[in-house]
Order: sequence, then C-alpha cells, then structure tokens
Amino acid sequence: MARFLKKRDQQLGRTPGSPVFIGQQKIDRPRIRKIDYSASTLHDAFFPDMEGMTPPQAGEPCCWLNIDGLHDAGLMTTLGSLFNLPSLVLEDVVNTGQRPKFEAFSESVFVTLKMLFFDRDHTMIQSEQFSAILQDNCLLTFQEKPGDIFDPVRTRLQNAGGRLRNSGPDYLLYALLDCIFENYLKAVEVLGERIEAFDEEILEDPSSELLEEINIYRREVSYVRKAVYPAKEIVLRMVRTESELVSAATQPFVRDLADMVEQTMDAVDIYREMLSDHLSSYNMVMNNKLSETMKFLTMFATMFIPLSFLAGVYGMNFESMPELHFKHGYYVILGIMGGIAVAMLAYFKKKHWL
Amino acid sequence: MARFLKKRDQQLGRTPGSPVFIGQQKIDRPRIRKIDYSASTLHDAFFPDMEGMTPPQAGEPCCWLNIDGLHDAGLMTTLGSLFNLPSLVLEDVVNTGQRPKFEAFSESVFVTLKMLFFDRDHTMIQSEQFSAILQDNCLLTFQEKPGDIFDPVRTRLQNAGGRLRNSGPDYLLYALLDCIFENYLKAVEVLGERIEAFDEEILEDPSSELLEEINIYRREVSYVRKAVYPAKEIVLRMVRTESELVSAATQPFVRDLADMVEQTMDAVDIYREMLSDHLSSYNMVMNNKLSETMKFLTMFATMFIPLSFLAGVYGMNFESMPELHFKHGYYVILGIMGGIAVAMLAYFKKKHWL
Amino acid sequence: MARFLKKRDQQLGRTPGSPVFIGQQKIDRPRIRKIDYSASTLHDAFFPDMEGMTPPQAGEPCCWLNIDGLHDAGLMTTLGSLFNLPSLVLEDVVNTGQRPKFEAFSESVFVTLKMLFFDRDHTMIQSEQFSAILQDNCLLTFQEKPGDIFDPVRTRLQNAGGRLRNSGPDYLLYALLDCIFENYLKAVEVLGERIEAFDEEILEDPSSELLEEINIYRREVSYVRKAVYPAKEIVLRMVRTESELVSAATQPFVRDLADMVEQTMDAVDIYREMLSDHLSSYNMVMNNKLSETMKFLTMFATMFIPLSFLAGVYGMNFESMPELHFKHGYYVILGIMGGIAVAMLAYFKKKHWL
Amino acid sequence: MARFLKKRDQQLGRTPGSPVFIGQQKIDRPRIRKIDYSASTLHDAFFPDMEGMTPPQAGEPCCWLNIDGLHDAGLMTTLGSLFNLPSLVLEDVVNTGQRPKFEAFSESVFVTLKMLFFDRDHTMIQSEQFSAILQDNCLLTFQEKPGDIFDPVRTRLQNAGGRLRNSGPDYLLYALLDCIFENYLKAVEVLGERIEAFDEEILEDPSSELLEEINIYRREVSYVRKAVYPAKEIVLRMVRTESELVSAATQPFVRDLADMVEQTMDAVDIYREMLSDHLSSYNMVMNNKLSETMKFLTMFATMFIPLSFLAGVYGMNFESMPELHFKHGYYVILGIMGGIAVAMLAYFKKKHWL
Amino acid sequence: MARFLKKRDQQLGRTPGSPVFIGQQKIDRPRIRKIDYSASTLHDAFFPDMEGMTPPQAGEPCCWLNIDGLHDAGLMTTLGSLFNLPSLVLEDVVNTGQRPKFEAFSESVFVTLKMLFFDRDHTMIQSEQFSAILQDNCLLTFQEKPGDIFDPVRTRLQNAGGRLRNSGPDYLLYALLDCIFENYLKAVEVLGERIEAFDEEILEDPSSELLEEINIYRREVSYVRKAVYPAKEIVLRMVRTESELVSAATQPFVRDLADMVEQTMDAVDIYREMLSDHLSSYNMVMNNKLSETMKFLTMFATMFIPLSFLAGVYGMNFESMPELHFKHGYYVILGIMGGIAVAMLAYFKKKHWL
Ligand SMILES: [Mg+2]
Ligand SMILES: [Mg+2]
Ligand SMILES: [Mg+2]
Ligand SMILES: [Mg+2]
Ligand SMILES: [Mg+2]
Ligand SMILES: [Mg+2]
Ligand SMILES: [Mg+2]
Ligand SMILES: [Mg+2]
Ligand SMILES: [Mg+2]
Ligand SMILES: [Mg+2]
Ligand SMILES: [Mg+2]
Ligand SMILES: [Mg+2]
Ligand SMILES: [Mg+2]
Ligand SMILES: [Mg+2]
Ligand SMILES: [Mg+2]
Ligand SMILES: [Mg+2]
Ligand SMILES: [Mg+2]
Ligand SMILES: [Mg+2]
Ligand SMILES: [Mg+2]
Ligand SMILES: [Mg+2]
Ligand SMILES: [Mg+2]
Ligand SMILES: [Mg+2]
Ligand SMILES: [Mg+2]
Ligand SMILES: [Mg+2]
Ligand SMILES: [Mg+2]
Ligand SMILES: [Mg+2]
Ligand SMILES: [Mg+2]
Ligand SMILES: [Mg+2]
Ligand SMILES: [Mg+2]
Ligand SMILES: [Mg+2]
Ligand SMILES: [Mg+2]
Repeated sequence: MARFLKKRDQQLGRTPGSPVFIGQQKIDRPRIRKIDYSASTLHDAFFPDMEGMTPPQAGEPCCWLNIDGLHDAGLMTTLGSLFNLPSLVLEDVVNTGQRPKFEAFSESVFVTLKMLFFDRDHTMIQSEQFSAILQDNCLLTFQEKPGDIFDPVRTRLQNAGGRLRNSGPDYLLYALLDCIFENYLKAVEVLGERIEAFDEEILEDPSSELLEEINIYRREVSYVRKAVYPAKEIVLRMVRTESELVSAATQPFVRDLADMVEQTMDAVDIYREMLSDHLSSYNMVMNNKLSETMKFLTMFATMFIPLSFLAGVYGMNFESMPELHFKHGYYVILGIMGGIAVAMLAYFKKKHWL
Repeated sequence: MARFLKKRDQQLGRTPGSPVFIGQQKIDRPRIRKIDYSASTLHDAFFPDMEGMTPPQAGEPCCWLNIDGLHDAGLMTTLGSLFNLPSLVLEDVVNTGQRPKFEAFSESVFVTLKMLFFDRDHTMIQSEQFSAILQDNCLLTFQEKPGDIFDPVRTRLQNAGGRLRNSGPDYLLYALLDCIFENYLKAVEVLGERIEAFDEEILEDPSSELLEEINIYRREVSYVRKAVYPAKEIVLRMVRTESELVSAATQPFVRDLADMVEQTMDAVDIYREMLSDHLSSYNMVMNNKLSETMKFLTMFATMFIPLSFLAGVYGMNFESMPELHFKHGYYVILGIMGGIAVAMLAYFKKKHWL
Repeated sequence: MARFLKKRDQQLGRTPGSPVFIGQQKIDRPRIRKIDYSASTLHDAFFPDMEGMTPPQAGEPCCWLNIDGLHDAGLMTTLGSLFNLPSLVLEDVVNTGQRPKFEAFSESVFVTLKMLFFDRDHTMIQSEQFSAILQDNCLLTFQEKPGDIFDPVRTRLQNAGGRLRNSGPDYLLYALLDCIFENYLKAVEVLGERIEAFDEEILEDPSSELLEEINIYRREVSYVRKAVYPAKEIVLRMVRTESELVSAATQPFVRDLADMVEQTMDAVDIYREMLSDHLSSYNMVMNNKLSETMKFLTMFATMFIPLSFLAGVYGMNFESMPELHFKHGYYVILGIMGGIAVAMLAYFKKKHWL
Repeated sequence: MARFLKKRDQQLGRTPGSPVFIGQQKIDRPRIRKIDYSASTLHDAFFPDMEGMTPPQAGEPCCWLNIDGLHDAGLMTTLGSLFNLPSLVLEDVVNTGQRPKFEAFSESVFVTLKMLFFDRDHTMIQSEQFSAILQDNCLLTFQEKPGDIFDPVRTRLQNAGGRLRNSGPDYLLYALLDCIFENYLKAVEVLGERIEAFDEEILEDPSSELLEEINIYRREVSYVRKAVYPAKEIVLRMVRTESELVSAATQPFVRDLADMVEQTMDAVDIYREMLSDHLSSYNMVMNNKLSETMKFLTMFATMFIPLSFLAGVYGMNFESMPELHFKHGYYVILGIMGGIAVAMLAYFKKKHWL
Repeated sequence: MARFLKKRDQQLGRTPGSPVFIGQQKIDRPRIRKIDYSASTLHDAFFPDMEGMTPPQAGEPCCWLNIDGLHDAGLMTTLGSLFNLPSLVLEDVVNTGQRPKFEAFSESVFVTLKMLFFDRDHTMIQSEQFSAILQDNCLLTFQEKPGDIFDPVRTRLQNAGGRLRNSGPDYLLYALLDCIFENYLKAVEVLGERIEAFDEEILEDPSSELLEEINIYRREVSYVRKAVYPAKEIVLRMVRTESELVSAATQPFVRDLADMVEQTMDAVDIYREMLSDHLSSYNMVMNNKLSETMKFLTMFATMFIPLSFLAGVYGMNFESMPELHFKHGYYVILGIMGGIAVAMLAYFKKKHWL
C-alpha cells in the first residue's frame, strides 16, 4: 500500500467540492465532542450526531467542536451548511492525502496538517490528519480517529483563570498547534537519539542489520520532513494573515510556533545529512574490512606459490636429477623453502602490505 | 525517435506565426465536436468542417468547440480568422513539442499543456497535448487524437442545475484542467505504488531485471516531472491573471488546482529521491552479496593451499626423506593436514571472516 | 587551445573601449553587405569598405548592414564614429570571448550572443559570435566569418507584402534572433537523438568507445548550455526593455523567443541529467558484467581445488599408503572426485551463486 | 545523549511562556553580577539574589546584569516581573536548545545564540548558550555557567575615557557579540589549521586513524555551521531593526559584525568542501594502494602457474615419457621454465602491468 | 600555515577600530608613492613618511596616494586623522584576511579585494590584498608589498589628452579595478588551458601524478572562486551606489566591470565542473584498466587449473592405473590437455571475456 500518496479513485471526475472521503476508515461511526467555555463556564459533552446543534451566537460562550472520523458524508454536508463552510474546504477536510495548507476566507480560517507519532514497535512514524476551521467564536477540529495529544490543553481549559479560558478560539487553535509541533520535535528527538548513536556502532560492528536500520531511519526522517516542510509555510502564512479571526494578542504566540517549526526543520536537515554521512562511513568501513580480508588471504596464498612450485619440481620424474640424490637434498630444499617464506614475509612487511 | 524533443525541421526559417504542424499525425482527418449549453439548453453535435460556424454572440448559449487532430493547416487558418486568434497562438497549438504555457491576450486566454496516461503494457507514461483558448462565451480546445478523459465533465454538463451549466466557459476550462491534474496524480500514484514496493524486493531478490525496472521508473518519473513542473507555473499565472475572462467566482477553484499540482510535485520529488535511494541500496546489496561470495570462495581456496603444499612436499622424489618410511607417516601427515584445516577455520572464525 | 575562454593577452592594460580584436581571424578582409528595404523598395549589395556610406535619415528606407570579419580595427573605428557607437560596445563586438549580453543605450540597443552549429564530422558544436546594434531605422550585424543561417530571412525580405518589409529594424532583429534560437533547438535535437539512443546500447554493448562517446556528448551539452543560459537572460531583458527602439508591435514576438529559449534550456537540462544517468548505468552494467565474470571464474577454480588436493595426496610417496594398493582404488578415488564436484555444484546452485 | 537536540519532555503540554529549564544544570545556584557604569562612575559587585534590585531609572548609570545558571525558575519569574519581560522571552532564555534568534519588542530587544569553544582534549567544539535582553539603559545577559570570554570587555570598561563607558548598553551588547563572533572565527581557524594539513597526510600515510579524524572534523565543522548560520540571520535583523534601542551611533559597528559572520560562514563552507574532497581523495588513494597490491600479488601468482603445470606434467607416472630419459631433460625443462618466466615478465612490462 | 584563514590572535578582545595588522609582514618599512595629476600637470614622487602631506583642496590637482606595506600602525593612524577615515575602515585595510567589501560613507567610498597572480613555479595562485579609499579628489590605495599590475595605468596617466587625466579619482579607481579583474581572467585562463588538456591525458596516460595535478588544479580553482565571488558583489554594489563620489560618467565603465566579473565566474564554474568530471573519468579509466588486467590474469590462471588437475591425477601412485601403461597414454593426455585449453579459450571468446 502506497504510504506517501493516498488512492483517490473515487475522486476522478467528481464535481469539485464533493466531500468524498479519501483514505482508510479507522472508526465505525464518527464521534462528536463539544466543549463550550467562557471565563466563567465550561461544558464538555459527547454527542451522537449534529441534531439540535447550532453555531454559537455573538456573546455566547466559545465552542470547540471536535469530530473523530471523516467518512460520514452526510455528517459533513450537515456541518457544511450549518457552519456555512466553503465546499472546497470540506473536500480538503475529508481528503486524508491533502497537502498541509492554510487558507483564510471571509468568515473562516482553514488549517490542515498531519499529527506525527513515533511507533516504537514498528520503528515507524505514524501520522493522522488534523484539520481546523476557525470562526468568530467557534473552532471546528477534525481527526481521523479517537485519541489525540490534546489532553494537556483540555486540562488547562479547566483552569478558570488561565489564558485559554479568557481568550478566543484563535488562542485555542494556537494551543492545539503548539501541541502538534511539540510532538514533531519529540518525534525528531526520538529518531535523533538513535541516529546520533550510529556513528560508533558503524566503527565497531557494521552488520547488515545496522545497514537496514540506517535505511529505515532515512525513510522515517524523509517522512517527517514531508510533513514538517509545508507546516512551516502554514505557520508563516498564519503570521502574515490579515484575517481578523487571528487577533493581535495571539500573534506573538503564532510567531513562537514559527520558531519551533524552524528548529524542527533544522534538526531534520541535520539528521538527514548525518544519515547520509553514516551510509558513506558504513560503506568505507565495510570496504576497508573486505579489502583487509582479501589482501591477507591473497598474501597467504601467494607465499605458498613458489614453495609448491619447488615441491612440484622435485616431484618430477626425470631420470637424472642430481639434487634428488644429494645426501641432505631434502633438508636443503626444506631450508630453501623456509628461506623463501621468510624473505617474502619481509618483503610484504617492507611494502606495508602486512 | 527522440521522445523529449520533437523534430521541427519544417519550422526552420519559416515566417513566425505559421501554423506548421510539428509532431506525429495520429488521426486521418480532424474531428470537430461542438457543445452549446446554457442553464436551460444543451446541444451536442459532431461536424465535418467549420462551414457555417460562427462564434457565439453575447447572450447566446456558451459554446465548447473541441478539435481532435492538429495537422490540417487550412482548418487552423479558418479557425484563426473566425475567432480572431493571434497567429503566435495558432503556431503553438499545432506544435506538439510546445512547452506548457499560459498567456492572456485582450480577448483570449491561451493555455497549453500535456495530458498524461500510464500505459501499463509498455510501463510508460504516454502524453497528448491539450490546448485551450478561452474567449468571452466560448472555449476552444485542441487535442492530438480522439478519446480523452473529459467524459465525466460531459456527463456533469447534462445536469441542468449543476454549476457547470450555470457558469461561464472559464469554469468549464477549470473543470477540464481539474480532470487533467487528477490524471497527473493518478499517473504518479500508479508509478508510486510500484516504487514503494521496490524496497523489499531489493533486499530479497536484487535481480538485474529489477535494476532495469528501477531505471525504467526513474525515466518515467522524470518524464512526468517534465510535464508537471511547468504546469505549476501555468496555474500560478492563472491565479494571478488580471484577465476578466477568468471570473472572480472561478478563482477559488483555480487556487484549488494549484494545491493539487503542488501535491503532485511533492509526490514526484519524493519518488525521485526514493528511486535514487533504491539505486544506491541495490548497489550496496549487490556489492555485499558479491563480496560475501568472493570471500567465501577465497577462504575455501586458501584453506587447501597449505594442505596441497604438504602433499606436494611428500610427493617429492628425494632419495632420503625419512618421514616417507615411518610406519604411520601417511596417517600422521593426514592428521596434520586435518589439524591445519581446523586451525585455519578457527582463525577465520576468530577474525569474523566466517 | 582553450575552447571555453579566449586568450586576451592584447587586452591586458589597454585603455577601456579600444576595439582590440580577441579571437582567431577567420577571413582575410571583412565583407560588407548592405540591404536597404522599405515596403516598396529593396536594394542588396556588397561593398569593399565604408566609403561614402552614411546612416539612413528618418524617412529613408531601413538599412541592414552586415559585416563578416571583426579584426579590422580601422573599419570598426570608422563604423563607430559614423553610427555614433559607444566605445565599450565596439570593444565587446570585436571580443569573440564576450559573454552574451543585452544593453540599451539612448540611441542604440546592443545584443551579442553565439550562433551554434553541429559539426557532424567532429561530433562537436561549433560557435560563431553574432552581435547586433539596433538604431532608429538601421540594424548593424557582425559575424566572425561569411556564411550564416539567415538566408530564409533574406528570402522573406523579397516578399514585398510580408511583415518584414513593412516593419522596422526591430522586427528584422527579432527575425534574426528567431533563426539563431531555432538553430539552438536544432543543435540540441541532434544531440538528443543520439543521447536517447544510448540507453539501449549500454545494456547491449557497453564498450569503452560508448563510454568515450557519452563523455563527448556530456561536454557538448555543457557547451550548448554555456551559450543558452545567458541567452535567456538576454531575451528577458529585451522583453522588459523600456527602449523605444523595440516597438510594441514587436514585443509579442520577443516573448515568443523567450518561450523557445526556455524550451531549449529544459531540453538541455533533461539531456544533461540523462547523460549523467547513462554514466552511472554504464558503470553499474560494467561492474555487474565484471563481477559475473570474476565470480564464474573463481567458482570454476574453487571446484578444482579439493580435487587437485586429493590427487596430490595420492601422489605422495609414503611407503605405506594402503589405498594405493586397493584393487579399484584408482576408480574409487575418481568416483569420489566426481562426487565432490557434483556436491560443490549443487551447493553453488543452492546458494544462488550459479 | 543527543548533542544536536535537547530533551524537552518537561515542555510537552505546558502553558506557553512557562520558564521551564531545558538542558543540563551546570552550576549549583545562579550567580548574579551587576556592573553599573557611566562616564564618571563604575560599580562592580556579585549578589546572592535579586533582593532590593530595581531597573535603573532614566539618568541613572547604565546597568549590566549578568546571570550564570538558568535552572532557578523563581529567580527567572522575579526578573521577569521586575524588568517587565515578555513571558515567551523568558521561556526562550531558559531553553538551552533554543534556536539563535533576534526579536525586537516595544521596550526590549532580545538576542540569543551560542558561544563556541574548541575543546582540544576531546577534539570537540563545546557550546554554551548566551542570551541578552537590551532595555533603555540596562543590559541583562544570561549564561549556563560561570566563566566566559568577556574579560577584555570588562577591562575596557575600566577605561573611563573609552567608548564603552561613554556609550549606552547597545554598544555594550555589540562589544559582547564582537567577542562571541571573534571566538567563532577562532574556533574555525583552529579546525582549519588541522584540516588544511590533511591533504599531505592523505598522500603520505592514509591510515584508518586519519579517516576517523577526518570524520571527526566533518562533524565538528557541521556543528559550528549549525551555530553560525542562524547567527548571520540575527546580525542582519539587528542591522535592519527599527528599534530605537539600537542607536544610530552603534549601527556601523553592528554592520561590521555582519562582515565577520559572513567571513566565518565562508570559511566554514570552504572547510566543509575541503573535508569532503579529502574523503574522496582518501578513498582514491586507498583504492589505488589496494589495487596495486592485488595486481602485484596476482601477477606473481600467475607467473608461477605455467611453471607449476610443467612440473606437474613431468611428475606424471606414464610408462613411456621419452623426455624423462633424455640426458639433460631436467636442465632443459628448468631452462624452459626460466624462459617462460622471463617471457611473462616481458609481456607484463609491455602491457604496463608492472 | 592556514592559507584560507589568517591568524588573528592579536585581534581577540581588542577595541573595535584598532588598526591591528593581521597577516605576514612582507616589506621592511612602508613605501609611499604620490601622483598628483590634472589635465595639464603630472607629479610623481616617493616619500619616506607622511610629513607635510595634506589632502588636496577643491580645485587642486587630483591625488593618488599608494602605500605598500600595512604593518606600520603609526602611519595608519596618521593617515586616518589626516584624511578623516572611519576607524572601522582602517581596521579592515590592515586585516589581510578581510573579506572583499564595498562600503560607501558620507565622504569616502571604501573598496577592498584580492589581487591574484598565477605562480608557475609552484602551480599556485598567489594573492595580495588591495584596498582603496575614494574621496572627493583623491584616491588612497593600499597593498601588502611593492610591485603591482598597475603600470599600464601609470603609463596612460602620462597621456595628457587621455580620459584618465581628464577625469576624477573615480575613473582612476575604475582603471585600477579593471586591471585587477583582467588579471583574474588571465589567472583563470592560465588554469583553464591546462585543465582543458587533461581530458586527453586521462585517456592516454592516467598516472598518479596526473591525479595529483588534477587535485592541485581543483584547489586553485576553489581559491580563485573564493576571491571572485565576493568581487561580483562589490561591483554590483558599486553599480548601485548612490554615493556622488562615483560620477555618472564613470558608471558605464563600472557596469563593464560587472560584465567581466560575471564572465570570470562563468569560467570558474565551468572549470570546476570540468575538473570534477575529470576526476570521475580518471576513476572510470583506472577501474577499467585494473579490471581488464585482473580479468586477463584470472582467465589465464583458470585455463591452467583443469590441466594441472589432470597432471596431478596421472601423478598419483595407485598400483593399477591402466592409462599409465597405454602405449601412447602420455601423448593422448597431452592432446586432451591441448583440447581442453582450446575449448576454454573458445568459451571465453564466446562469452566476450577475451
Ligand atoms: Mg477536485
Ligand atoms: Mg482541495
Ligand atoms: Mg485522533
Ligand atoms: Mg530506502
Ligand atoms: Mg513537501
Ligand atoms: Mg527564528
Ligand atoms: Mg518561430
Ligand atoms: Mg510559440
Ligand atoms: Mg484526445
Ligand atoms: Mg498549498
Ligand atoms: Mg566499488
Ligand atoms: Mg577592459
Ligand atoms: Mg565589455
Ligand atoms: Mg557568419
Ligand atoms: Mg553561463
Ligand atoms: Mg513560458
Ligand atoms: Mg521544465
Ligand atoms: Mg536511464
Ligand atoms: Mg511552547
Ligand atoms: Mg519560544
Ligand atoms: Mg559562562
Ligand atoms: Mg560522521
Ligand atoms: Mg540552521
Ligand atoms: Mg560584506
Ligand atoms: Mg565567498
Ligand atoms: Mg580532492
Ligand atoms: Mg573587531
Ligand atoms: Mg571590519
Ligand atoms: Mg603590491
Ligand atoms: Mg584539497
Ligand atoms: Mg552580463
């Protein structure tokens, strides 16, 4: 199954703006969680469907609506008309192969990107698409399946005096993005810890398992890079956006995000380069080892060649070979053989072949 | 036959703006299809030539005129004067080696690019040139031969309440480009599915057929890249164009195209890099395999060298070689040979050569 | 002789603006051809020198003055004062190592670039410098030697109703540049046709002649690239120029040139990349072939090693070697040898070394 | 322990702006040093805590407050409220993994970057984070541990007539940055001196220790590059800043810093390239050496092959082998063997294999 | 001694703007040469020190003051106060490791760069720092040691009617820079002539001396590149400068310099690429040669293996080996051996191994 590109056969030739789910369904039916909060109140509840729900009016508490599961076209259409969402946005929300993206509309700001998790069991970065639509006093977020990294934010929401409870949904969006980017750094850190250890292992034990592991880490670093690079673009657009939905008070925090994404990118680039260095180191070390082995064996063989030749000569059956009849011929020839061996060893030493 | 550059001998020294066909003729005579549509009406018909045809007047239904086959200079000249087309545009339309291009004139917008199809039989991306000229309420499109990927658009045109029937020719142009770019992604997806599978095959069975296949996929990915890169430029120019022929209502859709082209480019770049990694992996695996083989064989040979030497020594014909007359000389020497063999195996083991 | 940089010893320390010829003299004395044309008249004549010539007055027919041969400093000085040319321009005209360049002065526009020809006899791109100075109603052009690619333009000049006869010298300049750029594409096409054929040859017959040929094509593609890259800059400056000497009517044609140069650059880049792929393919194929050969030969040798050892053992002269006296000892040992050979072949097969 | 990325587990999910220390604690309790200076006065003292300290009022002497040790959250919070520091700045100050950064606020300018030292004992660049907050007439600086490179600045502060005593805290900040960047250049110079010497050593004695050393230097140059690249960005932002805290009189000095950083970057890039050249040189030299060795040994072996074959032939036990009974057969065959050896040597010479 | 970075130990921690000499002293005491020129007058003299010298007043002849030798801090300080030079400029003038630089002040324009000379004896580019300070009607220039490339300029200064005598010090500065850049091109040309000849030598005689020479040329081309790249920046800043010290009449000449620097950079890049191609060509040629040798020798050895085995078989001492007693057994076996040899040669031929 292609990991870098999602199958989009259903999409071919469809009317643009159709909310056709692209991806793998990871939950039976969507799960809806609605948190209404203001400086003084906090309501947190799960709902089976959208029945009876309306966007919060001006003056009402801020609303965070999170949907886990993107395959229910009916739900999406309902949401779309209820919150007056552009159809092209809905199409992007349900396309799990969508490229990370920031777009500002007159009444909504739309952000989509990947959440990354390091799956230790498969030495593999797993990803889940996260989309958010920011409106005047509500924030819609979409995930592929239940379970996320936002619990610290939900905890901070319970602190009535905290900045979260006293700010608008733009600050909530920032807080979620901050979680996501912290997790990027975390993922890179986990990869990096192993990568920085390869150096020594290559010198000590360049097994073929190590080579395979290096290649796995290269692939995973590439995978992270694919997610992080467009994320930088997104944050930069968010910094520069003229939409009033992102308030001036939230802007310094968004700039801080840019900082973090840049640091992640720096680290990704350093590890990519390091892995590529590791590969060439591995190659050099392997080549040197093999060369040493072959050289040793060849020299060993070479040393015996003139000796065997001599033995062959005195194994010939000529009638008149005077040496054969010398009293100590045999011992002399053994001595000569020993001398040749010593001389060759000395020559090899002198030539630094040994 | 050069696939990346078309022969243009007829073009050398010609007056600029001459509609000289450059390419391979793929159909006997051009085929003309005219679809007139408005919110309430729809006429779809084939015509043998341009006789009696006129550009639609303001207020008349929108007209989509598609021509399959570009070699008929007479037809092109007639079209040019009928629709008042710039001669340099006509020259580009009939040049199947034309670089993808967007150009806005006062009364026309001109777009040309390649349609891509994956030809499974030859593991090869096939391309066909598509050109479009957008005017006030008509759209002219040109293809090299009959048969295309636009049937879903034609089907949607039959839906009287749909956006296509209620928008101008600029939205129709968008719909056609959307089909073309969906097919780009489709082509990359087909390539990518195979490419992502190479990883494992290289480790398991690095045959020379696999190497050839990797090289074929590199060539095809390069070919797609050649088409997609300028396509991005085109869409970006279309987004930024000041021509009133592209209406504000259509602009968000054009931006969505940019999105899709960027995703295609990302995928193309990832697969390019992956294939290059595959090549070096293949090389490493092959090198390792060969080295292992050679090392094994050399060690095997080396082990016998001192044994054969010993046999040679005792095959010498010296008169006085006391060992030959020892009672168990033969068995002793066989034992010594066995001992040497075992010692060497132990040494190889210790040196990790085995 | 350095092909990529011209000797400029005479230039060291000279007063700037001196028309010192840099290059190889290719003609005995300069050849002057003057074509005066208007919608109604056409005069074409060769002249031995500049005597009596004056720049055309306003209202007089347009004048195209072509000089073949750049080494005559006197002629250049005469031209300079007659047409009031900036001295730095004259210096550039006679420097055949001048980088391609576009410069707009108050009363002149100056363009210099290389004409390219594919020399089939030496598989080599030949180049000749072309310079042009555009003034109000005259065009001066300079070449290194007689013979050029502009005959189609001269033919079109005879067509009294054609655009050339009815436009100013800026359109004539465009027509000449169009010829030059068509020839760039032609040169790249000729190189490309051979380059695209290398692929198969490498797989079938990777001879060392092929390697040399690939390297020759790399050098030539580099050479073309050196000429085409700055040519693009030139055309872009010509598109953007504010000089009134390039009329609005000619601008669309200049933009079309940009198109063609970009296509040439695309092709050059593709062929560069292809050649670099070819080199690594060649290397891989050669390596595989050699490895196969070496592996086969080594295995062949290895198979005989234990057999020869056995023969050696039974060639020893020990007094008591019971096997030697067995009735069928010889046949038994031959059978054992055959068995060992078969076993080793089976082992090699199992290990996929055969 | 990952050297290129700091563990930030405590940071995951925290409220933004919390001064959570990220890094390794290198001192027991923070050390505070306060220098108040004006043209006429100079007070220099150490303090155990912030008790009783207040920011200097306008007109009071300039204050330089340096804190060594970043782990004391209480101290940081006190400082923050006393000097009215943005909470995001405090968070960056105590994050020793923070990317180098310049940010201008309304009443503060914030700079953070790394100080580099070459640790000769471990052939390793060590780094320490330096942060500075510039306010109207005070400068706060933060380091990870006591001991720094600023003593020359402190010495110059004692010169009552010097520019330092007569300028504001912006010039003091410049003087500190100047020290830091001088040390960058120094570190690169130390690396470079060794790197430039590798060239010859590779030709003379390409040991595997040398290879390891080259790889160590590559890693250290990478490490320096990671610090210097963002430093350039910082200085450029400082040059372009519109903050009035950086006075016009200090600007030429800041531009001079940019100069120095660019020179450092140039040097880093040159040494990177040089090291990469060294690696390929090393590889070539090693390959050539091995090839020479193998070729020599193989030729040596080859020369004996036909000789041994001949010996084998005349070791056969056929009843009728006339040569065996020739009177001088033995000497003739020895002569033939000598002749073959000489002929082969001559052939090898002719083929330039020797 | 590090060639790419100058030792700057004295600089560490010094007050910014101190004229501390960095580099190698190449002359005992500085040499001062003063040329005063106007359209009508010319005075040229050497002076031991600055005593009695004053900057020329408005209306007085133009003054060119050249100082050879930068180590005399006293002289520099005198100059600085006399001509009112910024202290940071003085610091740069005496730092021979200063990066090339252009800076415009209110009353001075400062330029510093390297002069390059090809030292044939050591196949090495030598460099000397050149700095110039342009003021209203005087030009100060600084070199490391006596002897330069400006004699042609001094000669042209004697021509009372020439442009030099009739222009200001900005044109004189241009003339000096023109000399410097001509020498850059000259140096590249000298390198290039040898580099372009490597191609053939690699095919004919790929000795290890050639490899070393290629590496030397790579290093020198890198060295030139280090000087030329920032020189381009300088000229571009000079073209764009708004300082009135560079007059409009001189601007076209400065643009012509830009042209020349760009051509030099083009050439440097081409030769860099060419050298890198040469290295891989060299490697391929060497590999092919070695492979051919090894293959030949291995095949030679292989051919004898079955023959020696046969000889071994008939050297066995079994009692009953009927072949040994055949009348023509010996000749038959010799014939069989010959047959095997011929068959193997045929097989090798068929497999294209020969
Ligand atoms: Mg779509
Ligand atoms: Mg979309
Ligand atoms: Mg989830
Ligand atoms: Mg991989
Ligand atoms: Mg991307
Ligand atoms: Mg930053
Ligand atoms: Mg044309
Ligand atoms: Mg065209
Ligand atoms: Mg078609
Ligand atoms: Mg986008
Ligand atoms: Mg190799
Ligand atoms: Mg000049
Ligand atoms: Mg010039
Ligand atoms: Mg010519
Ligand atoms: Mg160029
Ligand atoms: Mg274009
Ligand atoms: Mg392209
Ligand atoms: Mg290929
Ligand atoms: Mg944070
Ligand atoms: Mg921060
Ligand atoms: Mg410290
Ligand atoms: Mg490393
Ligand atoms: Mg960085
Ligand atoms: Mg600078
Ligand atoms: Mg530089
Ligand atoms: Mg090198
Ligand atoms: Mg300094
Ligand atoms: Mg400086
Ligand atoms: Mg000098
Ligand atoms: Mg080097
Ligand atoms: Mg130029």
